[in-house]
Amino acid sequence: MQFQLTKEFLSELETSLEANNESQVVALLEEIHAADIAEIVEELDLNHAKLLYSYLDGNTASEVLTNLDEDIRDKHVSSFTPKEIAKLFIENLESDDATDVISVLNDKKRAEVISNIEDQELAKDIVHLLGFREGTAGALMGKELVKVHESWSVKQCVVEMRKQAKDLDHIYTIYVINDKEVLLGRLSLKKLLTTGSSTKIADIYSTGLKTVKTNTPSEEVASIMEKYDLVALPVIDDLGRLNGRITIDDVVDVIREEADKDYQLASGLSESVESSDNIWILTRARLPWLILGLIGGILGAKVIGVYEEQLRIAPEMAFFIPLIAAMGGNVGVQSSAIIVQGLANNSLGMEGTFIKLMKELGVALINGFVCAGLIFAYNTVVSDTQSLSYTVSIALFIVILFAGLFGTIVPLVLNKYKIDPALATGPFITTLNDIFGLFIYFYIGRMLYV
Amino acid sequence: MQFQLTKEFLSELETSLEANNESQVVALLEEIHAADIAEIVEELDLNHAKLLYSYLDGNTASEVLTNLDEDIRDKHVSSFTPKEIAKLFIENLESDDATDVISVLNDKKRAEVISNIEDQELAKDIVHLLGFREGTAGALMGKELVKVHESWSVKQCVVEMRKQAKDLDHIYTIYVINDKEVLLGRLSLKKLLTTGSSTKIADIYSTGLKTVKTNTPSEEVASIMEKYDLVALPVIDDLGRLNGRITIDDVVDVIREEADKDYQLASGLSESVESSDNIWILTRARLPWLILGLIGGILGAKVIGVYEEQLRIAPEMAFFIPLIAAMGGNVGVQSSAIIVQGLANNSLGMEGTFIKLMKELGVALINGFVCAGLIFAYNTVVSDTQSLSYTVSIALFIVILFAGLFGTIVPLVLNKYKIDPALATGPFITTLNDIFGLFIYFYIGRMLYV
Repeated sequence: MQFQLTKEFLSELETSLEANNESQVVALLEEIHAADIAEIVEELDLNHAKLLYSYLDGNTASEVLTNLDEDIRDKHVSSFTPKEIAKLFIENLESDDATDVISVLNDKKRAEVISNIEDQELAKDIVHLLGFREGTAGALMGKELVKVHESWSVKQCVVEMRKQAKDLDHIYTIYVINDKEVLLGRLSLKKLLTTGSSTKIADIYSTGLKTVKTNTPSEEVASIMEKYDLVALPVIDDLGRLNGRITIDDVVDVIREEADKDYQLASGLSESVESSDNIWILTRARLPWLILGLIGGILGAKVIGVYEEQLRIAPEMAFFIPLIAAMGGNVGVQSSAIIVQGLANNSLGMEGTFIKLMKELGVALINGFVCAGLIFAYNTVVSDTQSLSYTVSIALFIVILFAGLFGTIVPLVLNKYKIDPALATGPFITTLNDIFGLFIYFYIGRMLYV
Repeated sequence: MQFQLTKEFLSELETSLEANNESQVVALLEEIHAADIAEIVEELDLNHAKLLYSYLDGNTASEVLTNLDEDIRDKHVSSFTPKEIAKLFIENLESDDATDVISVLNDKKRAEVISNIEDQELAKDIVHLLGFREGTAGALMGKELVKVHESWSVKQCVVEMRKQAKDLDHIYTIYVINDKEVLLGRLSLKKLLTTGSSTKIADIYSTGLKTVKTNTPSEEVASIMEKYDLVALPVIDDLGRLNGRITIDDVVDVIREEADKDYQLASGLSESVESSDNIWILTRARLPWLILGLIGGILGAKVIGVYEEQLRIAPEMAFFIPLIAAMGGNVGVQSSAIIVQGLANNSLGMEGTFIKLMKELGVALINGFVCAGLIFAYNTVVSDTQSLSYTVSIALFIVILFAGLFGTIVPLVLNKYKIDPALATGPFITTLNDIFGLFIYFYIGRMLYV
């Protein structure tokens, strides 16, 4: 069912664009959804893309634009004049998408675009929305919604909804307000369809609507909509007045981005990158963590260096350096990941930190016992030196205990101080666990080899 | 805005349940949303939970049940008799949720529950839905929807919708069908509100609706709904007949689960666990990867063992074992993670594998050059042995190149053979990179120390 972009299609399109053959381009794209056209546009160079926009109707062109990858979208927008941006894109978009597009421009160009918007209502809405900080409900919300007054009758309500619906693609919820624009509740479509036309709205609307404030963080918005299975969520100001609504499709993006961010941190990427980004962007995202790993490696070398004498006595201790280091890292990442995911999904439950640590201790004891036992058995069979068997097993056991507890505490502490707990799963903590593991290993080695 | 469960609240509730004080329990829970009550119920023991269900009205009780964690939900459901399950839960649920609840029961109990459902329509729908394989659109869909016939007038349509809406919580989309139940398109609420009442539906419905088949995999359903910003997606059979619809809230769960699964694999967890799970479940999810890591460590020990003689000549080579091993793992995870995320988000773009590898080579060359340069500078200043400086830097450079390319290829190959590419970010590949790194390191060391 999904559109699949082929090289043949792309080259056919590029040839038609090269030839300025508008009708052929339009014919090629006719049956294709704007979200798919966006994927095509991402593969075109800027001039071809601009030509293509000019062939599309305003609705499609603007929908294509909002579906583009952010970097490409910003580049495209900036290449048009303020007047073109207003006519071709902004006037065809809903207020939240329009605000997203405008927000990438500098102040001067932004003002010019806004002054070129014919629809004064939309211009006002955009100016209002531009005022909210990114990452809050205010920045996520749109102004397009259907609101009815509690004093209206069902009949009057339908008439008014007809007027309001003209500007809407989709009616998510019918909001009920009072004289002061304060949000009172919602009117279900079912009620509207099944109630006599003289009934007052005040008698049939339902209360207990979930709401957020304009300054609610977008992560919280996402978690509320996800938990309560909401399709749209009204946004109110401090006086309880209805300011706008957030729709689930915008929140799906927030959820996806959040999950991606945690994943990136866990895999040592410092910013959101895609494999189609260029080499410089990819390097920039990866080099910082590698240098951190390098510093960790140097510290590890220092720790081992301290025990150089021990290595001369027992060079076979070097064999198990990778094992000790790797296991510390693995255990730490595992226990951090469980906490990080619990924080992200709000599923940590009621247990206090102490109980969590006790449980982690239990898990670590089992894991430590099994792993230390296995490696002891292996070494007893394979190695001649009994001291080595004892050293590796005891060190491994301690490392598993320590890394497990450390991995549990760190994300909880980071979260308490409002630092992204996912940092705990990144190379930083792994490296610390490595170094601690090496220290324990050699310390025990020196005690046992007499 | 979100409900926050406190210990005080929980103990007050438990006291009231202990005292069989129905009115007090009801009063305590009165203002609380079913999704929040579910969080509370998860903290109660089974007997208290069962008592609590009996105090709630059927709608709330069943909504609480569907909001529970899966393990707990299954335990609770199994503790009721078939008749209780049918009356208290199933008859108050939509067909898709009802099917989820029933599907955990064994065949005998399942049949008994179904025979106890009074609403014959619902029983039929559930039997139909039980037939679809988990992980497909059929298993995600619900049967509750509003459908209108193309031959109807707007007026007739509103009358029919009134009847159908009686059984619905939410009207997502109005589907238009023909005599053979074939899905033709959708009727927008806007059109319905703004068109004269004698107009035929056939003249005002819109076509080009996105659809999926009953056997479409749920990942594809999620990606379609996400890409095209859909709130509801109709499901058709091979004849094009409307079978049901999938709503965005169910798909949000699919998206979340998918992202969680990748994250778990990247952090070395073999199954979906929460920090509130018990010690045995937590251990079971973690031990397999640790044992894998252990085996990797033993292989690493073997590689170093081969070069024991070299370690006697140059014990300082042991210092940089952790650095070489860690860097190989870090680079590999980074490059795999970029590919895995690209596959999950459908954002790999048009580039072929060869171009991806060339780009990765570019990134790896820069990273390798920078890291090798830095460690060379460090060793030149700190260490007396020039051979060590050369060995560490050259080995690090090669390891970064190799791990980067290996990390790019492996997830692409896994994906081609329909194996979850996220496996590439787990401990398995990291361990392979470690071992390869050690081998290269000592191999070069033996060449350079003469």
